Amino acid sequence: MKLWGGRFSKQAAKILDEFNASLPFDKELYIEDIEGSIAHSQMLAKQGIITNEDAKKIKEGLLKIKKEIENNEFKWDISDEDIHMAIEKRLIELIGDTGKKLHTARSRNDQVAVDFRRWVLKRNLDFSKKIKELIEVFVNIAKENINTIMPGMTHLQHAQPISFAYHMLAYASMFKRDYERFMESYKRNNKNPLGCAALAGTPHPIDRNETTKALGFDEPSVNCLDTVSDRDFALEILFNISMLMMHASRISEELVLWSTSEFAFITLSDEYSTGSSIMPQKKNPDVPELIRGKTGRAYGNLIALLTVMKGLPLAYNKDTQEDKEGVFDSVKNALISIEILKETLKTMKINKENMYKACKKGHLTATDLADYLVKKGIPFREAHHITGRAVALAESKGVDLSDLSLDELKSIDARIDKDVDLSLENSMNSRKSFGGTAPESVKKQIEYFENFLKEINDKN
Amino acid sequence: MKLWGGRFSKQAAKILDEFNASLPFDKELYIEDIEGSIAHSQMLAKQGIITNEDAKKIKEGLLKIKKEIENNEFKWDISDEDIHMAIEKRLIELIGDTGKKLHTARSRNDQVAVDFRRWVLKRNLDFSKKIKELIEVFVNIAKENINTIMPGMTHLQHAQPISFAYHMLAYASMFKRDYERFMESYKRNNKNPLGCAALAGTPHPIDRNETTKALGFDEPSVNCLDTVSDRDFALEILFNISMLMMHASRISEELVLWSTSEFAFITLSDEYSTGSSIMPQKKNPDVPELIRGKTGRAYGNLIALLTVMKGLPLAYNKDTQEDKEGVFDSVKNALISIEILKETLKTMKINKENMYKACKKGHLTATDLADYLVKKGIPFREAHHITGRAVALAESKGVDLSDLSLDELKSIDARIDKDVDLSLENSMNSRKSFGGTAPESVKKQIEYFENFLKEINDKN
Amino acid sequence: MKLWGGRFSKQAAKILDEFNASLPFDKELYIEDIEGSIAHSQMLAKQGIITNEDAKKIKEGLLKIKKEIENNEFKWDISDEDIHMAIEKRLIELIGDTGKKLHTARSRNDQVAVDFRRWVLKRNLDFSKKIKELIEVFVNIAKENINTIMPGMTHLQHAQPISFAYHMLAYASMFKRDYERFMESYKRNNKNPLGCAALAGTPHPIDRNETTKALGFDEPSVNCLDTVSDRDFALEILFNISMLMMHASRISEELVLWSTSEFAFITLSDEYSTGSSIMPQKKNPDVPELIRGKTGRAYGNLIALLTVMKGLPLAYNKDTQEDKEGVFDSVKNALISIEILKETLKTMKINKENMYKACKKGHLTATDLADYLVKKGIPFREAHHITGRAVALAESKGVDLSDLSLDELKSIDARIDKDVDLSLENSMNSRKSFGGTAPESVKKQIEYFENFLKEINDKN
Amino acid sequence: MKLWGGRFSKQAAKILDEFNASLPFDKELYIEDIEGSIAHSQMLAKQGIITNEDAKKIKEGLLKIKKEIENNEFKWDISDEDIHMAIEKRLIELIGDTGKKLHTARSRNDQVAVDFRRWVLKRNLDFSKKIKELIEVFVNIAKENINTIMPGMTHLQHAQPISFAYHMLAYASMFKRDYERFMESYKRNNKNPLGCAALAGTPHPIDRNETTKALGFDEPSVNCLDTVSDRDFALEILFNISMLMMHASRISEELVLWSTSEFAFITLSDEYSTGSSIMPQKKNPDVPELIRGKTGRAYGNLIALLTVMKGLPLAYNKDTQEDKEGVFDSVKNALISIEILKETLKTMKINKENMYKACKKGHLTATDLADYLVKKGIPFREAHHITGRAVALAESKGVDLSDLSLDELKSIDARIDKDVDLSLENSMNSRKSFGGTAPESVKKQIEYFENFLKEINDKN
Repeated sequence: MKLWGGRFSKQAAKILDEFNASLPFDKELYIEDIEGSIAHSQMLAKQGIITNEDAKKIKEGLLKIKKEIENNEFKWDISDEDIHMAIEKRLIELIGDTGKKLHTARSRNDQVAVDFRRWVLKRNLDFSKKIKELIEVFVNIAKENINTIMPGMTHLQHAQPISFAYHMLAYASMFKRDYERFMESYKRNNKNPLGCAALAGTPHPIDRNETTKALGFDEPSVNCLDTVSDRDFALEILFNISMLMMHASRISEELVLWSTSEFAFITLSDEYSTGSSIMPQKKNPDVPELIRGKTGRAYGNLIALLTVMKGLPLAYNKDTQEDKEGVFDSVKNALISIEILKETLKTMKINKENMYKACKKGHLTATDLADYLVKKGIPFREAHHITGRAVALAESKGVDLSDLSLDELKSIDARIDKDVDLSLENSMNSRKSFGGTAPESVKKQIEYFENFLKEINDKN
Repeated sequence: MKLWGGRFSKQAAKILDEFNASLPFDKELYIEDIEGSIAHSQMLAKQGIITNEDAKKIKEGLLKIKKEIENNEFKWDISDEDIHMAIEKRLIELIGDTGKKLHTARSRNDQVAVDFRRWVLKRNLDFSKKIKELIEVFVNIAKENINTIMPGMTHLQHAQPISFAYHMLAYASMFKRDYERFMESYKRNNKNPLGCAALAGTPHPIDRNETTKALGFDEPSVNCLDTVSDRDFALEILFNISMLMMHASRISEELVLWSTSEFAFITLSDEYSTGSSIMPQKKNPDVPELIRGKTGRAYGNLIALLTVMKGLPLAYNKDTQEDKEGVFDSVKNALISIEILKETLKTMKINKENMYKACKKGHLTATDLADYLVKKGIPFREAHHITGRAVALAESKGVDLSDLSLDELKSIDARIDKDVDLSLENSMNSRKSFGGTAPESVKKQIEYFENFLKEINDKN
Repeated sequence: MKLWGGRFSKQAAKILDEFNASLPFDKELYIEDIEGSIAHSQMLAKQGIITNEDAKKIKEGLLKIKKEIENNEFKWDISDEDIHMAIEKRLIELIGDTGKKLHTARSRNDQVAVDFRRWVLKRNLDFSKKIKELIEVFVNIAKENINTIMPGMTHLQHAQPISFAYHMLAYASMFKRDYERFMESYKRNNKNPLGCAALAGTPHPIDRNETTKALGFDEPSVNCLDTVSDRDFALEILFNISMLMMHASRISEELVLWSTSEFAFITLSDEYSTGSSIMPQKKNPDVPELIRGKTGRAYGNLIALLTVMKGLPLAYNKDTQEDKEGVFDSVKNALISIEILKETLKTMKINKENMYKACKKGHLTATDLADYLVKKGIPFREAHHITGRAVALAESKGVDLSDLSLDELKSIDARIDKDVDLSLENSMNSRKSFGGTAPESVKKQIEYFENFLKEINDKN
Repeated sequence: MKLWGGRFSKQAAKILDEFNASLPFDKELYIEDIEGSIAHSQMLAKQGIITNEDAKKIKEGLLKIKKEIENNEFKWDISDEDIHMAIEKRLIELIGDTGKKLHTARSRNDQVAVDFRRWVLKRNLDFSKKIKELIEVFVNIAKENINTIMPGMTHLQHAQPISFAYHMLAYASMFKRDYERFMESYKRNNKNPLGCAALAGTPHPIDRNETTKALGFDEPSVNCLDTVSDRDFALEILFNISMLMMHASRISEELVLWSTSEFAFITLSDEYSTGSSIMPQKKNPDVPELIRGKTGRAYGNLIALLTVMKGLPLAYNKDTQEDKEGVFDSVKNALISIEILKETLKTMKINKENMYKACKKGHLTATDLADYLVKKGIPFREAHHITGRAVALAESKGVDLSDLSLDELKSIDARIDKDVDLSLENSMNSRKSFGGTAPESVKKQIEYFENFLKEINDKN
């Protein structure tokens, strides 16, 4: 018999239990549910709504249930519908009528709101930790590759020489923004739903500040009707994960490319590669491919919940039950993706010679010639055209622009003189503008990220 | 040790197993995998690539494994990566070296392609069956409600009187299109991937027509490079499910609306309703709400796989492993949604009086007055304006247009005469055009759907 | 001839121009482009890279172009590809060789990054303004409806009596979070891309702080490779708009429902309603319906850009050109949606009597009876069951629970006494917990939002 | 004054016109609207509902309007709301009261349904034509590259040698499925909505078969309530375009990769490439990048309309107005994408030597060694392991597997003998299984596609 069954004349159909129940997935929230119920009952006692003795019994009962769950002794029964009912029913079995008092001055609506919100808030912190560790890896690789020259690309075409350090720090920048998004979402949503009851608050003299403190929230939520139907915190983590995975998919794409025999810029470690069931020679970059693939799943979960929430009238509607599985799935997959991405990066071998060799193709220092001409007083657009002709000459000779002799360059434009230096090193080292690829700029960037990491380490 | 580990010097990291393995979800494909392997080995024997005795041993071994799985005796080990490797490894344990011959002339790439495709094809048939049953329910309700008048709405505003039968048949029309989409997808994709091997075919003298026949395909696929990376069949079922759920969400929305105390057009049965943990009087339409919510999930899974497939170079990439969970999830959720929607419809009570009463508000026969005037020779646009004034008069008197006296109507326009009939019945019965709401039109529609149902029943 | 055409031997195909050009939509950015170019050239002069005279000429030329555009005298030519090239080409026409110096030390990559980012940043501020005005409307309606009782609903079923003020403030809460998201995104992304050049910075002695100040940024971006390919700011506004529209779709759904003849809780004003081409009596809530519909478009634009960015290698790729149209579309549609939603709310008529009358159906004070029993010392679960029986009794008599006589209530449970008060007013007024629906709670909420509005007004 | 304004006491607000009007985009449908109105009025006359003379005047008026639109003489006024009202109003201006009869027995609901559906149906045919031409290009390239060896890849790692012809035919296979989807959708949806009126049919004695014939439909739709709210045909084209673009994004990704200086498998023609504003040496594969990017837009438009349609009650709701822009956008972008993809493929240079050279890295014939050993009677799994050791030996010597001497191979396993042939040619030529890469298999595939093309050419 359902706990809510008083007015019903027929039992629920069996298929309804199966369809309706969230227990198979919301048991993930058992800790939050038990902690929430303890905080709630302690507050009820403090406010004189139940006795201290009742509160003590309830707490003991709940802690016993926690142990049962953790020892796999708890009997899950899908007809209990959800984790909240399952625990409350067991509590009544364990401590009798006192257990029936727990649900005073609350509803499943605020109960699920508080449980799920706290679960999500904790995961925001988990992500911030994982992302911090990932940024550390990028910074560490950067520190060792300030002078490792590689072809900087646009349109996947060789553009200008840059350092591998610089490339790694681009990702540090992206993931720093991710870090900030998770932490801002944490802060904005750290508000206590408990005590909102079904939708309208409660006539019992509860104290929401009490449970706010006990559960680590910053303040109680301000309008209960909104609170019980608010899933912004869940949508935000789904979006923040989508962004995180989008960034992860970009470095993954590059790891896959760099692992090809054509690029051969890196070699993934055996521990983070796999083989083929049929082709004995294969070593496959499964890890970055799968991370890239899991980005789709993150997007899907985001769009799923956005769709669910569209056009829902206030307050709670059952549609909202569809909020959890997608979040659980995105969280789980993204956390492991970031962890394994970090390990893959840490263990990969960087083939510096191949990177350098690649820079000899594609006239990477053409912009430098144009910039050289500008410094000689030639307007940039004209300099760009002159350089275009120099590139054409190099192409016709089958050499790189940097291999043209001074005479050949002069044949293009007499203003080119012996002070011209089209070497890769000169190109990279000269880009000293703030945020640029020159070693002195890159060192400042490393310092910037180290300061950032120190700051967030200090906070925790 | 992995079956593919020959060239690797280090073991895979533990987290890689966890991240990489598809076994936790692709064991869903065990039947398809075993049937595929049996068909493959029989063909190998027929072509003289392995001996008949080998084939016999392999078949016996595979059938034993099937039993082990079905009796929960099979030992799942995540380090086996996927269902294919898990079964092959067990086969080798069971029958020794002969088992090592099974993977001749195939690869995991065509193996997963054939397993997953067949699983999806079967589900297309499951959907067609469920949809057929749902259409039957709509038709049955329609047959009993040809004269049940309800307010037909646009913009959720009362528009014109229609029959409830007619409303139900609108859904029969939608789900008929769903049926057709699933069946067309089945037909287009019923092509055998087996024998494509890794990506290029095989030098062994296999006969793909043999496995085609054995596994119930229509023909072998025509280009193996495409075949091993083709997931069109999976995307199609995800789209077809999205459409199906979109239609289901529309009737669900209406069931929720019709269950409100404001509409009260229907009463859901107790067996397919739920109560509230806090509000004892509540009876909630959880079923249609949850169906509506699950539409989001279907869309999410579609967008997830579309995202995965975008920009993938040929042929197999690990990203594609992300194809299955979303499909399994969409299939499972949609099949149960359609089943429970059917039961909810079958058991609901239709409150005909409330529907009829509702028609007395909103001047539903205003169009009839306009059409009446048109028949008197007044151009429609002018008739529309005259009627607008009549509606305004009724509004000012606080009555429905159909309650205005002939004199009152005449005061608006003298051409209105005693042959005017603005009753709901007259309105509905007069809309006899093909596809309209008049009983004689609706009967033809019922016949149309009964013929359709008969036809597909005859086929099966 | 393209400005970049130096090394090309064949002209671009005509269809390429049409396909490739972003000019038809990125001319939206002309102000940002001109302002950026002025800031850039002023800085170049200050750093001695070009002369002050050059800078002056460039500025004059650019301001002339601005006027040409605003007076519709500018000649748009699709073969110019984009707004950047179109303006630069015109500048060269106007001021000759000096114009060719403008592109020194920058690239289209940082140019588009700075233009688009600034455009988006400004729109964040536009949204914050519109949302503030919308919240004001909700607060104003709330202030006049603190005692307007309506049925609070869950599952669209009558649940508990609440005030219309309280309902309005739920939306104030949602839109406040939207406000915060736009402002946080503004703050996080207010970093200057200019001077990043193609991807690696520049060898010219530029000063990025100079352009940072001139263009109103907080600081220069820290890694140029990231900066030229970063579209987080665009994705954030697309997500924030999706959330905003999701919230708008919820109040829209309610406006549509409340406008039905079944609910009749509100009457939309004629100015914000439309009629029917065929049914003269119709008055349709087109505005909220269309807002609800436009939510889909917001989601679509979000998923579109997320898809584009997935797996893009560094740095700029042409795919990214697909970033703008979706953002322009979402911004335009959401801004007008919020504006018209505000007007629709301001001009609607609230039918208080209908709301009150509706509360007499559905036993809305059942929870109050349960809470009454709890206060008598009965455990909540038992109280819930007793109330369930009372509801069943009321149903069997065809009356509302609040209409049962004391004797009838006593027949259910003798502990119910004459101090029981199941009136709507008592129910609402008793829910005084923080965030609840009682007038004293609602007044605090109004104060909370008024403080918030004052605070953001003071800032601007 | 609106044509529907009879009952309204206030004018629509100005912003409502701007917000509400679909005229700025639905004028795209002017041909369909005029053709539909002509067919409708002809039928009205034939049925005696209006006079032949009226019908003649209406037709003449409509044809005049068509000319006005095509000569840019038509005065578009946003307050006319939509193309239907704009044309009807103009008709009344032109021919007076007779024009007011046109809207007899129809509504905007069926008018928009017939206009938009016919527009979409025609585009299905446009796509089928474009796709056919694209397949022809793949087949033509294939015919000239049956013996062009390239590295077949999985996980972007060299796997087995395949022919470029074979690779091209993989795409022919994909686009053939696209062709089929467009044509099936055309067929399923070729049903006439006209005569459905607002939602319930009409009391006028219309003949829907008449307009069905006149407008080229197969049959009238069967239930009008469904018909006026059915947008399945629009969702189908959005999905089919998404699939088409997904396939196009895959070949685009490959074109980008193949154009890198690392791969250098192809050289795009100057006519279908672009340059850089800053880097004079660049030649960028903008076309395939942009096609890849436009895939996101196609997905976005799909999800947008799916979201719009979710949970809509019957029949027409204004939300549905959001159906058109996304479809117009997807159609336009996809049609030009396919066209320009075709031209890009036709004009690219295939660098056969580079492809061949690439095959010398990555031990592409390792599977052949395993297969060789299988033919010697060694179980495949064992053969796979032996080959793994041979690959390891080659790696340690820094050579390709195919470069190992017979003695070296024998040192791995004595059963390897002089009949072993690990050449690329032998590998490719041996994969003769149906659908494989051997020239004889590829020729059959070419024949298959040529037959398919012939068949569809014959039909048209």
